[in-house]
Parts: sequence; structure tokens; C-alpha cells
Amino acid sequence: MIVPIYIYIALIAGILSILMALLFAKKVMKADPGNERMVEVAGYIEAGSITFIKRQYVTLAIFVAVIAVALLFIPSPLEDEVRPIVFMNWEQSMTYVIGALASMWAGWLGMKVGVKANTRAAQACTKGAKEGFDVAFFGGAVMGLAVVGAALIGVSLIYLWIPNPFIVLGFSFGASSVALFAKCGGGIYTKTADVGADLVGKAEYKLPEDDPRNPASIADNVGDNVGDIAGMGSDLFDSYVASIVAAMILATALVLGPELPLFVILPIVLCGVGLIASLIGIYIIKWAGSEEPGKALNSGTYLATIIYAILAALIIWVMSAGQIASVAVRLWRNYLATVIGLASGIVIGFTSDYYTREDRKPTKNVALAAQEGDAVVILSGLSYGLISVAPAAIGIVIAMAIAYMLDGVLGVGMAAVGMLAIVGTIVANDAYGPICDNARGIAEQGELGDEVIRVADKMDSAGNTAKAITKGFAIGAANLTVLALMFSFAHEAGIEVIDLLSINVLIGAFIGVVAPAIFSALLILAVQRNAGKMVNEIRRQFEENPKILTGEEPADFNKCIDIATKGALRELIIPSIISIILPLAVGILFGVAGLAAFLAGSILSGFVFAIFMSNSGGSFDNAKKWIEDGNLGGKGTDTHKASITGDTVGDPLKDTAGPSINTLLVVMSLTASIFMGFLLAFNHGAGLLSIFL
Amino acid sequence: MIVPIYIYIALIAGILSILMALLFAKKVMKADPGNERMVEVAGYIEAGSITFIKRQYVTLAIFVAVIAVALLFIPSPLEDEVRPIVFMNWEQSMTYVIGALASMWAGWLGMKVGVKANTRAAQACTKGAKEGFDVAFFGGAVMGLAVVGAALIGVSLIYLWIPNPFIVLGFSFGASSVALFAKCGGGIYTKTADVGADLVGKAEYKLPEDDPRNPASIADNVGDNVGDIAGMGSDLFDSYVASIVAAMILATALVLGPELPLFVILPIVLCGVGLIASLIGIYIIKWAGSEEPGKALNSGTYLATIIYAILAALIIWVMSAGQIASVAVRLWRNYLATVIGLASGIVIGFTSDYYTREDRKPTKNVALAAQEGDAVVILSGLSYGLISVAPAAIGIVIAMAIAYMLDGVLGVGMAAVGMLAIVGTIVANDAYGPICDNARGIAEQGELGDEVIRVADKMDSAGNTAKAITKGFAIGAANLTVLALMFSFAHEAGIEVIDLLSINVLIGAFIGVVAPAIFSALLILAVQRNAGKMVNEIRRQFEENPKILTGEEPADFNKCIDIATKGALRELIIPSIISIILPLAVGILFGVAGLAAFLAGSILSGFVFAIFMSNSGGSFDNAKKWIEDGNLGGKGTDTHKASITGDTVGDPLKDTAGPSINTLLVVMSLTASIFMGFLLAFNHGAGLLSIFL
Repeated sequence: MIVPIYIYIALIAGILSILMALLFAKKVMKADPGNERMVEVAGYIEAGSITFIKRQYVTLAIFVAVIAVALLFIPSPLEDEVRPIVFMNWEQSMTYVIGALASMWAGWLGMKVGVKANTRAAQACTKGAKEGFDVAFFGGAVMGLAVVGAALIGVSLIYLWIPNPFIVLGFSFGASSVALFAKCGGGIYTKTADVGADLVGKAEYKLPEDDPRNPASIADNVGDNVGDIAGMGSDLFDSYVASIVAAMILATALVLGPELPLFVILPIVLCGVGLIASLIGIYIIKWAGSEEPGKALNSGTYLATIIYAILAALIIWVMSAGQIASVAVRLWRNYLATVIGLASGIVIGFTSDYYTREDRKPTKNVALAAQEGDAVVILSGLSYGLISVAPAAIGIVIAMAIAYMLDGVLGVGMAAVGMLAIVGTIVANDAYGPICDNARGIAEQGELGDEVIRVADKMDSAGNTAKAITKGFAIGAANLTVLALMFSFAHEAGIEVIDLLSINVLIGAFIGVVAPAIFSALLILAVQRNAGKMVNEIRRQFEENPKILTGEEPADFNKCIDIATKGALRELIIPSIISIILPLAVGILFGVAGLAAFLAGSILSGFVFAIFMSNSGGSFDNAKKWIEDGNLGGKGTDTHKASITGDTVGDPLKDTAGPSINTLLVVMSLTASIFMGFLLAFNHGAGLLSIFL
Repeated sequence: MIVPIYIYIALIAGILSILMALLFAKKVMKADPGNERMVEVAGYIEAGSITFIKRQYVTLAIFVAVIAVALLFIPSPLEDEVRPIVFMNWEQSMTYVIGALASMWAGWLGMKVGVKANTRAAQACTKGAKEGFDVAFFGGAVMGLAVVGAALIGVSLIYLWIPNPFIVLGFSFGASSVALFAKCGGGIYTKTADVGADLVGKAEYKLPEDDPRNPASIADNVGDNVGDIAGMGSDLFDSYVASIVAAMILATALVLGPELPLFVILPIVLCGVGLIASLIGIYIIKWAGSEEPGKALNSGTYLATIIYAILAALIIWVMSAGQIASVAVRLWRNYLATVIGLASGIVIGFTSDYYTREDRKPTKNVALAAQEGDAVVILSGLSYGLISVAPAAIGIVIAMAIAYMLDGVLGVGMAAVGMLAIVGTIVANDAYGPICDNARGIAEQGELGDEVIRVADKMDSAGNTAKAITKGFAIGAANLTVLALMFSFAHEAGIEVIDLLSINVLIGAFIGVVAPAIFSALLILAVQRNAGKMVNEIRRQFEENPKILTGEEPADFNKCIDIATKGALRELIIPSIISIILPLAVGILFGVAGLAAFLAGSILSGFVFAIFMSNSGGSFDNAKKWIEDGNLGGKGTDTHKASITGDTVGDPLKDTAGPSINTLLVVMSLTASIFMGFLLAFNHGAGLLSIFL
């Protein structure tokens, strides 16, 4: 098959993106890292982050090696020749490893720059808000650009090498293995440290946030880097690639005629266009971001959306030239589906924003509930989180319906692609958050004075607003993506209907609906177990050495970092294995139709749990901040204490369990697609239990 | 159609049951109501309960009247003649009203006896544990027997009048309208009072449980009656009738041949047998219940199960005599399906018990987590609640699969019937709980001394153990029942497949999965809003009249009762309307296939939320009790305080939102079936949006 030249748009955009990332990284490195104390603190954070990532990558390497070997033995999607049983599927196995390496590299670079940017951003704040914003934003943009660049280069080169979407699927699966570890491990790490630091330092000893006397303060900062930068980056890398591959597979199945090659590369091309839009968006934010950082970040997102819509229309216009009318119309319909997807992503982001902002009714009610005590604030936050699922679900349902009207399930797949087209901007905005959070901590520890901390605070709060939106976006995008993957899996497995009146389908759907609940509970318990150890360690340090509290002697940060690191790596194993084993078990027992229903069930309930947990957590967080700003009596009151309890409950919901569900869904869907040939071997795909049912 | 005479087994068992209920009621009334103070307190509780139920029944009457009129205008399931447009469907409308009245009568009688039994049980405890147990257990048995008797008499008389299961469906819908109000209203009432009493009385003023100085203490006791007796009773009335009707409809659709009449009445007959087994079980409990009340209640359940299995086998043996081999085999297969259903109900009850008992690992871990503070205990309890969904889901999935193997979807319907066959015992055990809870409070207020309170405490704790099991049972039973209703709806609507690859089905399933989350959040917020008012009222009383706290002047109970009553009635309106409107809207827009998928989605996610919420709440409750028994430092410690926060969060989860989901599911499924003719009018059942999708 001849690959249309439009694919080079994506390749060139990808290379451009990586070059820009390296350029931004250099800019950040050149900035002034600040005074000795700041460099020291930043050094601790960097060392802690690097140690964690290194150890995580070692565990990951073993996992990837096992899967890569397993992949060698499953039937190849390439039916070009009779293959030996060993190395039967070497291409997919290879692209799997490449996908894992690409995602690891992007995560590594982003985090490496992130831990350099924090102290430099803090120092830049002494010169002014604009300078501080620039450093933090460039630092975050490195992650965004590296992720998107590596993903697009990978996808387009692999497709140019072997023009078969299933070979690209290997790349996607590799990326999602990394995301699973980064998200679960990073999520457990960051909240172990955060919850531990809050429970003892803030609640028991009344230390302020980021106080250097708190032994877990460095681990808390490390957590922001490994969880929120590396974790979120690899999560979106994962969704991004998966959405492209899903749409490619759907196009292969659903486009009949000579225009097929054009439609298969369309997702790649439009993502290339989206990347260019993101690059422009990033420059707009940089230019506008001095005064109102929060507004700037959001405007950048909206502008990138508009630029995408215009540029993509141009390229569709070019591509449709010379095509027959029906093909041209179909190209335009697919284009519209991407725009609908993108718009719905923004709507979901907006609803997340509404439910988590302290100046809107829900979060204000959560704050007011804190006056009635700990239990009432919890009930209130959990309830609004659940209710916030409704508007987000309506948004995605409308997007799904319109996309379907435009071009059936291929339209749905393209909506997912559209939603993720400007992911460069999204990741950049997201990574900006933890850099500012760290910068604020370093400014505190480096004693840069109240004015600088105030500037850093403002930057930090802009990061939080952006984070609410990006999180909603990430959930919506992952959801549409896995839906597209489910459709593509069903098509490829030759499933005509997934009939809920068949018992194997119903049971598959049942297990699917249950899975995200269990998965998130395992992660929350992991955080809780680990945080318990952290709490004991902090209490031990304060009790055994009272000089820590007076500030005469430094706390033992490393002990806390060690607890968080070891715990996170130990606790991520079981959830990771579940996400691979469970879909395989369902497929083997209940057949591919049961497995497809399992995926559908997990997607729907995963959406509910992910939105619920993210928004509850965000609402608790901002209710607490609102009270800390002096409302309802402000800091030190019982109301404040209750709001801290709420925040502590919300932390693992919003930063560990909720966002990990995305990755779970993608990994499970990809596992199904990758191992389809293997699953079809059990009673021709009807499953082992089909003889009874 | 000639109705086989076996149906009279059910009718006679039903009449017997009502007679026994009246006999037990008389026995309870004859017992000594205790000293003057006790009679006074019991009088307050009775007056409060009666007031609430009366007001609730007034609101309910309006609701029932509106629906009854609406039912007149929908197409009749009887196609015997051309009917006028008005009164087109008078039979279903009439049975709807009868169903509502029957359920109201059973709830009324059960509660009326319950509020008489509490003080008498407390007084009997002064004579000994056996005497106390007898009164409390007889009091609870009245509810159990009245529910089952009224249901069976209603179902069999209606079917003898018009032998068409769809006319019986009206009766079921009537019962479920009552259940919706009783469950939501009662659930909001009981937790408004409980949470309010705990937050101020116990947490702020350190008053013991049931302290007469607490202004909300009477409302709390009233809540136990209206929520746990009347609410739970009408919930199981509802599931019980629905499971019978669903199996009857499935038999009509799936049994072809002269044996049809036999299979249609089989669910009624087997429930009659189950009722006889329950009666025997109740006598066994009464006889054995003196020393170990907890064990006695559970043994009664197991024995009723075994007796059911034996008696039902006998009747099947009689029924299959003279039938051709294939019919006889099918009768036995259906019998086995009921046994499997019953066994799986017990398994689900067991897992609920395991996850909520303080001497098992999960709840012990929740208690240990309380040492780390309020937030950690919450995270721990929520997580274990989520994890507890897994074994329960496995139990129901296995039951479903085996039942399906035995006789397809009819087998699944019969499994639901089996699960509910011994519901008389279940309701009796359940209603025993709040009577003991009340008795304990009255013993406290009547100053009967520590020894009597100890006896009452022991009885109370047995009630709690039984409650965990009955709740798991109720959720499992409702789930299988609505599954059977979904199948019967699909059959009747002529749906061949419910294909998740169709967009309207997928969207329907999506909305279905979201619905229980929103519904429960609305109920929790309702409790929270109402509890807030209660908290303010209690604080106001303590502040304005310090003599209340010293015990010199009585608290103003009526004000608290009034807040709980008005709030509960106001707050139940919106959730009630949603449960009728939502399925209709989905059916109108996305067609009957979309609606069937909506039901399936809501069943699966409803199961997850119901089990999660019930078990989390139960675990919080027992973790607190375990600490109050002197573990981990006992009462008054920070650990205890954290466990109270856990319990307060768990209260509306386990007693309002979780159990209401059952009723929501049944009402939505019945709404779909009842209004099917109406929904088929929109694009021949394809839905209004079918022209676009």
C-alpha cells in the first residue's frame, strides 16, 4: 500500500516539536537557580525524583521484557507468509518495545526539566510575575512537546515502515504499559507523601504547607514531579497514540475503496495539524501569560482549538482536492467529528472547572458543609462529585451521537482523535502546575520573602485551575478513545453484535462494570497503607528529635523518600497485573463478545468513577483553599480542620485512583486487541464456557 | 386459560401468614409495656412514627392517584376487545392501586406493631434474655408475615381473576411506588435524625447513645421504625412481587405447549412453599433464640432455606407426576434454579457479613485506620466497601450463569424467585433489629439499670449481624429480579438483540450506568441538608436552654421530629420523579432497545453502588462499635472520634442511598414494562432520535 505523502506533515511536526522541546529545555537550564538553600532543596527533589524514576524503570523493564517475549508467540497480524512459531510476531513485539522506550524517554526528559525548572521559576519570581511564569511554563511545555513529538514520530515512522495499523498497535501498547506504571506508581508515591505530610505536619503539628521542618516535605515535592508531570505525561501519551491507532484500525475496516490509504493516515495527519496548533497556542500563552496566568493558560487552550479547526479545515480542503464528491464529503465529515470531539473535551473540562471552583455553588457548599464537621464535608464533597458525572456524561453522549451521525463508529474514533489533537497544549498546561507547586515550596524553603511567595502562589493557583480542566479533558479523551478501541476490537474479532441478552455478554459487562471500582479501591488502599508508614515515620522523627520542630536540626528527608519509593513500586504490581490478566481471563472464559462487553462495561463505569473521584477531590481541595484564604473563619478553626480532612480524603481520589482509571481502560482495551489472535483460539473466540452457556 | 389448582397453595399460605401475623401482633400487645417513663417515651416514638407515615401516605396517595390515572390511558395488555380511549386500561390501573394499598397496609401493620413491641421488649428484658428476645422477634415477625402474606394473596387472587401476568404487573408497580416513597423518605428521615443526633449530641456534647437529654433521640428512634421497619419491609415486598411477576412473564414468553399454565404459576406456588418454610423457620428461631440470638437468627435463615429446598422438591415431584418427561425435567430444572438463587443470596449475605464484622480483617483494618485520623478511616472504609463488590458480584454471576444453563433467561427469573422465596424470614429478622435498637433506647430512658441494658445490647448486636446479611440478600435479590424484568421487558417489546455496537444502545447503557450514581448522590445531599437543619436545632436548644443538658428540663423532641418529617417528605419528591421520568425519556428518545440497555446499565452499576455503600457503611458502624467496646483505647480517644466520623459518613450510605438503589432499579424496570405500549408508539419503538442515529 502506498502511504500518502500527507503523513510527512505529522513527521515534520513531530521533529519540530522535539527540537522546540530541547530548545525550551536549554532556556530553562540557563536560568538562575537561586540561592544556595534553594539549590540544595531542588537538589534533594531532583535526586528523589531521579531515584524513583530509575527504580521504576527497572521494574518496568522487567515487565516490558516479559510482555515483549509473550508477544513473540501470539499470531501476527501480518498474514504475508507462513511464520515459525518462535518470533512469529517480532514486528509487534519490536514496536511494543519502541513504544515503551519512547514514552519512557518523553517522561524522563519532561521530569528532568521539571525538576530543574522549579527552583529557577522560584528565583525568577523575585524579578517579577512574568519572569516566573515564563520559566515555569517553558518547563512544562518541554513535557508537552516531548510527549507529542515522540508519539507522532513513532507512529508515522512505524506506519511508513510497515503500513499496517496493527503494527502501530504494538507501539501503542508499549506506551500504555509505561503509562500504567507511571500513573499507578507516581499516583501512589505523590499521595503517600502528600497525605503523610498533611496528616502529621499540618493537622497534628500545625506546620504550614511546604515547611522545611516537615520530614515529608521533600517527598511531597518529589511526588508532584513523578506523579503529576511524568505520570500525567505518559497518561496522555498513551491516550494520544491509542486514539490514533483506534481510528486507523476503524478506517481500515470501514473505508472500502481506493480512498482507504487517505483515511487510514487521516488521524496521523490531523494530529500533526493539532501539534502545529499547539505550538502556536504555547507561544500565545507565553506572550499573554504575564498578568493573568490562569486566564492565559485557558485562553491558550481555546486558541489552540480554534487554530486547529482552521488549519485542519485547510488540510482537508487540500486533501479533498481531486477526490470524487463522496470521498470529499466523507473527509469533511471526519473533520467535523474531530472538531466535535475537541469541543466536547472542552465542555467536560468546563464542567470539571465548575464543580471544583470555590466561587461556584458546589464547592462553596462543600466549604459551608465543613462548618458541620468532618463527616458532613465528606458527604457533601462525595455527593457533588457523583452529581458532576451527569453533565460530563451528557457532553460525551452528545459528542458520541453527533460523531456517530457523521460517520458511524469511525466518526466516534475521529472524535477521540480530535479531542486529543491539541494534547501538546494540554500536557504543557498540566506540567506547569507541579513546577509552580514545587517553586512555591522552594521559595518557602529558600526564604525568598512574602512577596515572592505571593507571586508563586498566584502562579500555583493558575496551575490548579488549568489542572481541573486538563483532568476532565484527559478523562473524556481516554473514554472516547477506549470506546473507539472497543469498536475496533469488535470489528477485528468479527463480532457482529454484542448482545446484552446473551448471558456471556451480560456477565462480561457485569465484570467490566465492577473492575474500575476494585482497581481504584486497591490503589486507595495502597496509598493508605503507605501513608500510614509515612505518618509513623514523621511522628517518630518529631518524637525522637525535638530539635527538628524547633528548626535547629534538619529532618531526615531521605527516610520519607525511601518509604514513598519502595511502597509505590511494591503497590503498583498487583493493579498492573490485573489490568492485563483480567481482560485475558474474560476473553478466554466468555469469548471475544464477552470481552467486548467487558470493555464496554468498564468504559462506562470507569467514566463514572474517574469523573466522580477527580471532581470530588478537586472540590475538597479548593474548598480547603477557600477557607484558608480567610473565609468562614479561616485557618486554625474547626471548619478549616474539617476541610483538611476533606482534602486528605480527596487527595488519593483525585490524584491516584481517579486518573489511573484512564490508563487502566486503555491498557485493558489494548490487551484485548493485541491478544485477539490468541483469544480466538478458544472455541473460535466463543470462550471456554460457551459449551455450557 | 385454566389456572392449575396448585396456586391455592400460595393463597392458603398467604392467608395463614396474615392470621399468624395478627396472632403475633396480639401476643406482643398483651405484653407488659413497662414503667411510666417507658410508656411515655414509647408514646413519643409511636406518635412520631404514625405522624410521619400518615403524612407520607398522603403525599403517596397523590402520587398513586396521578399514576393510576395515567395508566388508564396507556394501551391495555388485554387485547380482548376494542376499548374506549378512556378507561382503556382500567384493570392494570386498578391492580396498581390494590398493590399500593396492600404494601401500605403491610407497612402500616408492621410499623404499628413495631412501635408497640419496643417498650414491651425492653420490659421483658427485665425478666430475662429469652423473654426479651421473644417479644422483639414476634414484633419483627409481624412485618415479615404481613408483607409476604399480603403479597401472595394479592398476586394469586389477581391472577385467578384475570390470568394474565401483565395485570399482576400493575399490582407490582403499585407496590414499588410505595417502596420508593417508603425507602427514600424513610431513609432520609432515619439518617437526618441519626446523623444530627450523633454530630451534636455524641461528638460535641459527649452524650451517650440514646441519652434522653439529646433532643434528636426520639426522632432517631422514630427513624429506626419508619426507615428500617416500614422502609425495608416495603422494599422487600416490592422485590418479592416483582420477581414473581417477572418469572411469570418470562414463562408466558418462553414456555410453548400445554404445560404453559403450570410454568406461569410456578413462581407463585414456589413462593407459597417458601412462605411455609419461613413460618417453620420463624418457629425454630423462636424456640432456639433464647441464648444466642445472633446465631438463632442466622440458623433460622439457613433452616428455612433447607426446608424450602425439601418442600419445593416435594411439590415439584407432585406437579411433575403425569407430565411428559421433557416437562418434568424442565420443572426440575426450574426448581434447581430457585435453589441456586437462594444459595447465592446466602453467599452474598455472607460476604456482606465478612466485610462488616469487626472480628474479620476488613473492618478490623478500618478500625485500625482510625488511629491515623478521620481521613484515613474514611479512605479505608470506602475502599473495603468497593472491594467487597467483587465477591458479591462473583456470587451473583455464578448464580446467573448456572440458572441460565438450567433454563435460559427463565432460569435467571426463577433464581430471583428462589432468592426471595424465604423473604418472610428475612424481613422478620430485619425488623427485629430496629425493635431491639428502640428497646435499648427505651431501657436507657426508662432507667431499667445496667443489667437490662446489657441484655438489650446483646439483642441489638444480634440484630446488626442479621441486618448485614439481610441487606446483602436484599441487594442480590433485587438485582436478579430487575435482571429478569429487563429480560421480560425485552421479550415483550419484541427486542431480538440489545447490541452494544448500536449507538442508541450504547448511549442507553451509558445513561443507565450513570443513573444510580446521581440518584444516590441526591439522597445523600438530602440527608446532609436535613441533618444540617437538625444540627442547628439541637445546638439552638442546648444554647438557649442550658437546663436541658443538666437534665432539669426535657428537650423539645417534637421540633426535631418535625424537621425530620418535613425534610424527608420534601426531599423524596425529586428522586421519585426521576425514577419514573428517566426511563420514559430514554425510551422515547432512544427506543425500547436503548431503554433495555439503560435498564441493564443501571442494574450493573446499581449493584456496584448498592453493595459498596451498604458494606462501607456497615464496616464503619462496626469499627466504631469495636472501638467503643474498649479496643484501641476505647471511648473518648481520638481514635474513637475518628471512628465516629467514619460512622457518620457511612450512615447515609448504608441506610439511605445504598438500599434505595434497589427500589430505584425495580421502579425503573417496572415503569419500562408498564409503559411499553406507550413507548412503542414512538417510531415503532425505535425512539425519536432513530431518524438521526
